[in-house]
Amino acid sequence: MKQVTFTLAATDGMARRGRIDTPRGDIQTPAFMPVGTAATVKAMYPEQVRETGAEILLGNTYHLMLRPGAERVAALGGLHTFMNWERPILTDSGGFQVMSLSKLRKLTEKGVTFKSHIDGSAYELTPERSMEIQTLLDSDIIMQFDECLALPAPYNEMERAMELSLRWADRSKNAFNDQQNRALFGIVQGGDNAELRARSARGLRSIGFDGYAVGGLAVGEPQEVMFRVLSEITPELPTDRPRYLMGVGKPDDILGGIERGIDMFDCVHPTRAGRHGHVYTRFGVINLKNARHKEDHRPIDEQSPNPNCRRWSRAYLHHLVRTEEILGAMILSQINLHYYQELTAGARNAIEGGTFADYAAQTRASWAAGDLPPL
Amino acid sequence: MKQVTFTLAATDGMARRGRIDTPRGDIQTPAFMPVGTAATVKAMYPEQVRETGAEILLGNTYHLMLRPGAERVAALGGLHTFMNWERPILTDSGGFQVMSLSKLRKLTEKGVTFKSHIDGSAYELTPERSMEIQTLLDSDIIMQFDECLALPAPYNEMERAMELSLRWADRSKNAFNDQQNRALFGIVQGGDNAELRARSARGLRSIGFDGYAVGGLAVGEPQEVMFRVLSEITPELPTDRPRYLMGVGKPDDILGGIERGIDMFDCVHPTRAGRHGHVYTRFGVINLKNARHKEDHRPIDEQSPNPNCRRWSRAYLHHLVRTEEILGAMILSQINLHYYQELTAGARNAIEGGTFADYAAQTRASWAAGDLPPL
Repeated sequence: MKQVTFTLAATDGMARRGRIDTPRGDIQTPAFMPVGTAATVKAMYPEQVRETGAEILLGNTYHLMLRPGAERVAALGGLHTFMNWERPILTDSGGFQVMSLSKLRKLTEKGVTFKSHIDGSAYELTPERSMEIQTLLDSDIIMQFDECLALPAPYNEMERAMELSLRWADRSKNAFNDQQNRALFGIVQGGDNAELRARSARGLRSIGFDGYAVGGLAVGEPQEVMFRVLSEITPELPTDRPRYLMGVGKPDDILGGIERGIDMFDCVHPTRAGRHGHVYTRFGVINLKNARHKEDHRPIDEQSPNPNCRRWSRAYLHHLVRTEEILGAMILSQINLHYYQELTAGARNAIEGGTFADYAAQTRASWAAGDLPPL
Repeated sequence: MKQVTFTLAATDGMARRGRIDTPRGDIQTPAFMPVGTAATVKAMYPEQVRETGAEILLGNTYHLMLRPGAERVAALGGLHTFMNWERPILTDSGGFQVMSLSKLRKLTEKGVTFKSHIDGSAYELTPERSMEIQTLLDSDIIMQFDECLALPAPYNEMERAMELSLRWADRSKNAFNDQQNRALFGIVQGGDNAELRARSARGLRSIGFDGYAVGGLAVGEPQEVMFRVLSEITPELPTDRPRYLMGVGKPDDILGGIERGIDMFDCVHPTRAGRHGHVYTRFGVINLKNARHKEDHRPIDEQSPNPNCRRWSRAYLHHLVRTEEILGAMILSQINLHYYQELTAGARNAIEGGTFADYAAQTRASWAAGDLPPL
């Protein structure tokens, strides 16, 4: 019997409150998944990630197949053991990063051959090999292999890539071989075209997946285009399966995604922004590099539930960012991941209570009101 | 009444077991002080530093006067508040880093003018300004301003710098103005010459300090020269004051320093080595970049009291080092600082029990036996 299941507990408008059960623990949805690209969420111990409220991480097949290699991770006990994260892990299929990072790639019906961006050595990735790698990593939620285009793109290109991704979805499903302790998600492609997206969704539904991702967004298009595509596509997806918006985003992208019926999100943005001195808070985004903070003894937000928002002065954080100290990356990454978890936890509570529209409006008003006035 | 005092509890050969009491807490000696150059021990939260056993940190006057500036730190509540470290802090005088890092420096009887290595802006450092800065930082143990030469150096240069440092010691003492809640340490100079060192020590004793540092070592000379100078100089220092060997060193330097009557040490080496993939253990130093670790599922040392030595495979740490992940710097810095604290704690116990010679011999034998055999 399938050990990864989805339960839809409540809806509020299009927004959904649910739970994914897996052998490695439950995931309350809507959920944000921190990204552990190279088997580490950058600048965080795994227990620090857990303490922010995260219940599941994302691992990148492309990075892990290059270093340290899927077979090596398997020999070392799988990705959870390797990186000391006991809870669920979702792995992407490698397709997106092959397109965005690798060199000399060649796409055929069979798959993609490419050279590593690290040392130029040659690799092949196919639906079958992607399933094999994700299984070697011991992933709990496996993504089909797909082709992801940057936007804008010509219709013919979007159609070709969508249809190829559907054929790869079918091969991914066959290669996945109905493993009972893992889930396999399909990925809706089709660029910014509603008809292509709907065809993609229908095709995936007829193959049948444990969950449905929306791929090929947040790849250069304006937020309004992404939101339009989401509004068009979520009604085409089954209600009894989780929906995952890949690679998104900033807090307001996530709020808008939840509003349109998305259950799961992942993005490197909170940790990357933290390493560059930007923190997300109920005041919106704060750039700690800015000179206005250099003598500011106040913490980021003294009413935050997160100790890192209360215990350090803005002046100290400004100093750490300016001097490029690792502790700055550590603290600011934690603050951002914590805020993303607060945001999704707040959304879950609001959907349960039927007050999601109010929650979204209040959250946006708080961001719009901005930061504390300068000292 | 002076609130910073030293109590010598036991001796074993030249080795000493003591305690420094300060208003911000006690320091058991021999003690290793982690270095928090720019108001942070690199890649560590302050409570993680404390959990390694550290009881006192070192802060660098040169770095802090440039960024964020001593007056700014004072306005923000002092260095302890600024960086969230409640226990004692020792600050150096700035002299060493002015010589090693700054540009276009000019030395006169009055002090040193120099340009910042960061932005080229001009500064002056004198004994009086150094005392002022260290007081603004709210340091618990203040170092006299001195001139530190690299070795080897001509006799005349060593004599000139030693005599200048003595005159600056006198001015430092006057400017320090007998603050009761802080200690002021003098610094013995004189290069590798026993007679100059003895003259320096006599001069400092006649001025009178709360503690005596040995400066101008670990500046390019072989370890045997450093050990000879230490053996010659510690008998010239008062027994009722702490002795501090500045900027030293690797574990075997510290063991040799304790053997020769030193009570306090500081060095960036453990955190810097950690950032470069080297860890210190009872097996000696281990280079985690080495390919021998890439498939090694074993932890660094499963018998270590430090969880970070037990919970991560060598293969994972190798991976973090090779991919230059921040978590690698975080874990390996912690492992090194923890080992330095284990080493000094072991020395303290051995001196108390009158078994320091055995402890030193066993520790060296363990290092010499080396790492686990490869898998």
